[in-house]
Amino acid sequence: MRIAIVGLGLIGGSLALKLTEQGYAVFGISRNLMTCEQALALGAVQACGTELAQLQAWDPQLVLICTPLEQVLPTLTALLPYLSAETVVSDVGSVKQPIVRPATQLWPLFVGGHPMAGKTTQGIQSAEADLFVGRPYVLTPIAETRPQTLEILQELVAVVGAEGVFTDPARHDRAVAWISHLPVMISASLITSVSQEVDPVILELARTLASSGFRDTSRVGGGIPQLGLEMARHNRQAVLANLRSYQQHLQQIETWIEKEQWDGLSQFLEQTQREWRQFPVNQPQP
Amino acid sequence: MRIAIVGLGLIGGSLALKLTEQGYAVFGISRNLMTCEQALALGAVQACGTELAQLQAWDPQLVLICTPLEQVLPTLTALLPYLSAETVVSDVGSVKQPIVRPATQLWPLFVGGHPMAGKTTQGIQSAEADLFVGRPYVLTPIAETRPQTLEILQELVAVVGAEGVFTDPARHDRAVAWISHLPVMISASLITSVSQEVDPVILELARTLASSGFRDTSRVGGGIPQLGLEMARHNRQAVLANLRSYQQHLQQIETWIEKEQWDGLSQFLEQTQREWRQFPVNQPQP
Repeated sequence: MRIAIVGLGLIGGSLALKLTEQGYAVFGISRNLMTCEQALALGAVQACGTELAQLQAWDPQLVLICTPLEQVLPTLTALLPYLSAETVVSDVGSVKQPIVRPATQLWPLFVGGHPMAGKTTQGIQSAEADLFVGRPYVLTPIAETRPQTLEILQELVAVVGAEGVFTDPARHDRAVAWISHLPVMISASLITSVSQEVDPVILELARTLASSGFRDTSRVGGGIPQLGLEMARHNRQAVLANLRSYQQHLQQIETWIEKEQWDGLSQFLEQTQREWRQFPVNQPQP
Repeated sequence: MRIAIVGLGLIGGSLALKLTEQGYAVFGISRNLMTCEQALALGAVQACGTELAQLQAWDPQLVLICTPLEQVLPTLTALLPYLSAETVVSDVGSVKQPIVRPATQLWPLFVGGHPMAGKTTQGIQSAEADLFVGRPYVLTPIAETRPQTLEILQELVAVVGAEGVFTDPARHDRAVAWISHLPVMISASLITSVSQEVDPVILELARTLASSGFRDTSRVGGGIPQLGLEMARHNRQAVLANLRSYQQHLQQIETWIEKEQWDGLSQFLEQTQREWRQFPVNQPQP
């Protein structure tokens, strides 16, 4: 299968590395010539160009749009003149509702995708062929989605070693708001709250004493600002709803502590310990 | 030096293991005979008893009270008849203000301590001799603290491989409220918010898709309920103040998203990324 990857960042670069390794013919497109040169040097792509028009000569059966979220629809629109009638297109955006329906209207052979993998570093220099191994790869078909798009994407999911998860765009967005977007906001607020401590001795002490608990709770809030902003902008309704629900629980904790209702807090913490274990990622690794 | 350790859980057991390994004569006290037998079998202690009175025959120069927080003062009170005039006493409680002054009044050779180390598992079976290596060990002398207590504790800190940090009980409690106690409350609220999602398909999807970001942000909220309760009860004022400050920042985020004020959110996330790097624990390991 001939594949084109538009956008050679961490995700696009990692997909390119793995697909090339698995014997696929991969063409890369990056606006940045240096990124193209890096992709070629890493052996991630067989050929690379800086213009979408160059993709036409490659005649790919699958085009993966791996740009930042706000570039997905503009990129697809700009790609349309260069796609052949049977070319399947997918994206890797972390929010699906604003993309899937308009993209399917632009190109009926579109299906939304979201490989759930990441790193704290960005760019093709951080790319890893095995980034997706064992990770969920969400596909979000809608009623209008053509079956052949799913066949090709399922092959992709299998080849990169991921686990295919099927859902609709709205449910995807609400689920990732819970487990990915809300954590960024609550973690960022933790960092800022501590950092605005007015007693400089306490602030310095807090920084000195911070250990693995603080490191873990603050990690996603200290991440790449553009990603947090993208989540909030493009998944605004779900993030807002989840923030409000979250604040109610936090307010309840404050009330228990304020009123010294220790039974309430105790039962709550016992419940969170039980609920925490319901997440496969929190279960002990075999 | 002859040392007695009262309470052979994770912290007491780890201190006992290290001190025995370093050639000190360690006597253990646990209310639970099985724990004594385990401590002896592990080689953590040279002798062990279930009664505080047994400590008298050991005539220790240092007694470390490693019980849960609410047992520190009752244990010290019960110990008084068995201490010789020169015995130094310290504790390992995670909150210092409620303990240090009353304990010093009970026994002038008392100094508060807090070795900042932990694990997700409890009990002597989880003990590790090197649990404290490279970790901060806070000592909280007050005006009444006798100098010889600090000399002995500084020896202890050095022997277990920790880094001594000196501060007063109030500042200790406010700093750990920021970096240890507040994270538990915000992490627990995250777990419960997600777990109370009313659409079972979204809940299941959220659990399936949760990955390292959620795992890290939710970790301390899924921990041992008694520890979270202890923090809130005994460090109530600092935890309440921090919860309130935290909620203001979260409310600000909600407002930016609600009003689509993306510049505000963007600057905030850039700031949290910078602030995050100010914590030594978040800096790349050499």
